[in-house]
Amino acid sequence: MKSTLIKDIYRNSALYLNQEIEVSGWVRTLRASKAFGFIELNDGTFFKNIQVVFEEGLENYAEITKLTTGTSLIVKGILAESPGAKQPFELKAQTIVVEGECASDYPLQKKRHSFEYLRTIAHLRPRTNTFAAVFRVRSIVAFAIHQFFQERGFVYVNTPLITGSDAEGAGEMFRVTTLDLNALPRTEEGKIDFSKDFFGKETNLTVSGQLNAETYCMAFRNVYTFGPTFRAENSNTARHAAEFWMIEPEIAFANLEDDMELAEDMIKYIINYVLEKAPEEMAFFNEFVDKNLLERLNNIVQSDFERVTYTRAIELLEKVKDQFEYPVEWGTDLQTEHERYLTEQVFKKPIFVIDYPKDIKAFYMRMNEDQKTVAAMDLLVPGIGEIIGGSQREERLEALEKRMKELGLKQEDYSWYLDLRKYGGTHHAGYGLGFERIIMYLTGISNIRDVIAFPRTVKNAEF
Amino acid sequence: MKSTLIKDIYRNSALYLNQEIEVSGWVRTLRASKAFGFIELNDGTFFKNIQVVFEEGLENYAEITKLTTGTSLIVKGILAESPGAKQPFELKAQTIVVEGECASDYPLQKKRHSFEYLRTIAHLRPRTNTFAAVFRVRSIVAFAIHQFFQERGFVYVNTPLITGSDAEGAGEMFRVTTLDLNALPRTEEGKIDFSKDFFGKETNLTVSGQLNAETYCMAFRNVYTFGPTFRAENSNTARHAAEFWMIEPEIAFANLEDDMELAEDMIKYIINYVLEKAPEEMAFFNEFVDKNLLERLNNIVQSDFERVTYTRAIELLEKVKDQFEYPVEWGTDLQTEHERYLTEQVFKKPIFVIDYPKDIKAFYMRMNEDQKTVAAMDLLVPGIGEIIGGSQREERLEALEKRMKELGLKQEDYSWYLDLRKYGGTHHAGYGLGFERIIMYLTGISNIRDVIAFPRTVKNAEF
Repeated sequence: MKSTLIKDIYRNSALYLNQEIEVSGWVRTLRASKAFGFIELNDGTFFKNIQVVFEEGLENYAEITKLTTGTSLIVKGILAESPGAKQPFELKAQTIVVEGECASDYPLQKKRHSFEYLRTIAHLRPRTNTFAAVFRVRSIVAFAIHQFFQERGFVYVNTPLITGSDAEGAGEMFRVTTLDLNALPRTEEGKIDFSKDFFGKETNLTVSGQLNAETYCMAFRNVYTFGPTFRAENSNTARHAAEFWMIEPEIAFANLEDDMELAEDMIKYIINYVLEKAPEEMAFFNEFVDKNLLERLNNIVQSDFERVTYTRAIELLEKVKDQFEYPVEWGTDLQTEHERYLTEQVFKKPIFVIDYPKDIKAFYMRMNEDQKTVAAMDLLVPGIGEIIGGSQREERLEALEKRMKELGLKQEDYSWYLDLRKYGGTHHAGYGLGFERIIMYLTGISNIRDVIAFPRTVKNAEF
Repeated sequence: MKSTLIKDIYRNSALYLNQEIEVSGWVRTLRASKAFGFIELNDGTFFKNIQVVFEEGLENYAEITKLTTGTSLIVKGILAESPGAKQPFELKAQTIVVEGECASDYPLQKKRHSFEYLRTIAHLRPRTNTFAAVFRVRSIVAFAIHQFFQERGFVYVNTPLITGSDAEGAGEMFRVTTLDLNALPRTEEGKIDFSKDFFGKETNLTVSGQLNAETYCMAFRNVYTFGPTFRAENSNTARHAAEFWMIEPEIAFANLEDDMELAEDMIKYIINYVLEKAPEEMAFFNEFVDKNLLERLNNIVQSDFERVTYTRAIELLEKVKDQFEYPVEWGTDLQTEHERYLTEQVFKKPIFVIDYPKDIKAFYMRMNEDQKTVAAMDLLVPGIGEIIGGSQREERLEALEKRMKELGLKQEDYSWYLDLRKYGGTHHAGYGLGFERIIMYLTGISNIRDVIAFPRTVKNAEF
């Protein structure tokens, strides 16, 4: 007999009522008297448990009453209505087989544990309500993102993680090597001989798939990446991890406005999808993690996102600059406090800030006519600040070469990127969404370590 | 006016016939006389081109006639039926705007190029028919895999890529470090001081997410990974890359038979999905890459996959051992020639070979009662041999510890993995599918370098 999944029982209980079924899962709680007992059993397929009722007639009744939290069981019985109780049905056990006992030093006893402690048992924490909800939502959102793009005909591209180019220049990178560090090969000049390394040259872990994605954008028109990305920044904050996942769509024959429309549609699609597919988890977060979560998300879905230029944003911020820790001045990057003020206090909804000064943005962003700003956009949302950063790309070969020269970038390092402008280039745009950041936003979880199964941060690569 | 996608025109031509529409894309071919001309325009959203007809009345007629392959255009016109022609409709151009010219040294001229040459221009090759088809199929199959598992309630887990454990012991790994190789920190004993490295210890790129995935399996019951994996093997073959993607489902309360059923269902689901969603691309592969492709795939969908024990497989192979290059003997691993003989000549359909000798399989596979074989399975398919490898996992703590001891594995390195057997363990199983291998199988493409956008192999990390 195959086990019925608890999710299926909840979603289609009429199918199973008064039937004999088998369920299998793990004991969350167990209480028993001399004559009967109750088990809250969870099988991992659903946020809620099923209640198992067992009576002293069971052959192994005494054994069952002594079982502890975490034990795995296979239960056969009749699914019966449970009138007046908290749960709509319960399983009246006919047999209970102990599949795997749980040692008495099991760290996940009934009491509440701190998130800090649970990080030290990252292999067990998905068995708790909070982390079961977080990682189910993470899975559902990943699929929502794929479905959003696939429905629109976008081609999913796997850009390489090991990279021989330092093209983005977007921060510190991890070196990848197979050289024996205890016997590094040397050239005649005494330098390390990377021609002996696996790839025949220096290689690192990528910080962005964008430049590679642009090559496929010029073939498939609309593409997206969704894969891991790395930053070797020595910053121990709640928002930074050394290894995280990014989504980077890239669209051809598209300008900054098209880019913003895509980002807005995507955010709303994700929120609607997760509210529909994980209502129990989202209700849990709203109750136990962030009481304003559902209100905030519903507000976003119903808003038309605002557009405001960077220059106008600075004007708005300068009016109240005394209330900020960081200075506000045209030419400086916005800090989270500035971003949150704009989206929470001024506009009270998500806003795109556009047309940033060229000097605080990347070389590939399209120069505006004023020659001072570029066609960049950051999406700011209440409660968090920046969640997406994107731009229209510089498709004009001369303008791109000029900007690279200003910044001291060598053309030969970017020859394939420049080829895209030589051979039938088009105006195009794209953006990056940090996957963990959207998960934090959707769940209210405030530390990135709690939305990554096995987080990698400074001095931490456990499991 | 927004461009209509060529895919939408082909799929719903009735909607657009006799309407004024705009399309934008790249010139594949152009031929013109003094009075009129034809452009085959491709916009990347569909395998086929749209035919644009333009006449001398166009303001920039002379300019247009001189355009070359690769140029990007924006065309407005009326979609008209094209009676008796190869294509069902054509776009009668009213205006043609040149978006981006294509330099005369464009490498993708009309003539056929070798796959070897096209690898050197990996940033441009998706603009060819073959690679457009390969990478669209890759995208579609990725989504099919997600959808298959999500429909069944599986939770998608992102296992870490940077790993501090060498747990699988499955081969050579890439080191990840931020240490300055020219000034390596040393301990008092003169060893390299990895406590100074980013993660405070030695780290590598993962070779498998399985052990991490098992931890989530014991929480969510059914999980899968789908992410990059790395092998630093110095093998320059058509089937090996240093960076590739893997799918690793893991299912609880499941035995080897459940594992095989899941694998069979998944393979059939993928094939059906790609045949339905990419019929043009699949017909192209069948015509130009492998004339037996569709027949072979249809045969698989209609087959019940066979099961045969390793011991029986060896008996079958020994009968004809003279025809093989490699020896056949109980206790040795099967070579591709053996696998293909079994699936192509003996059974003429996909087969699962099960119950391999323990000594040629990994430590975590479940010991059979004979104490000589383990509950492993490899799925062999005609035309390629092994495509999936899996096993039931050893869930019995004592048996696992015994096997680890035999193999000299230190328990302290696997404490979290052993915890899964101490705290409510269940019987469970899983398998690994190499993503590129299934793409090769579905397209008939024989070199892994041609199904990865920017392949990483020995001495090669370009782009």
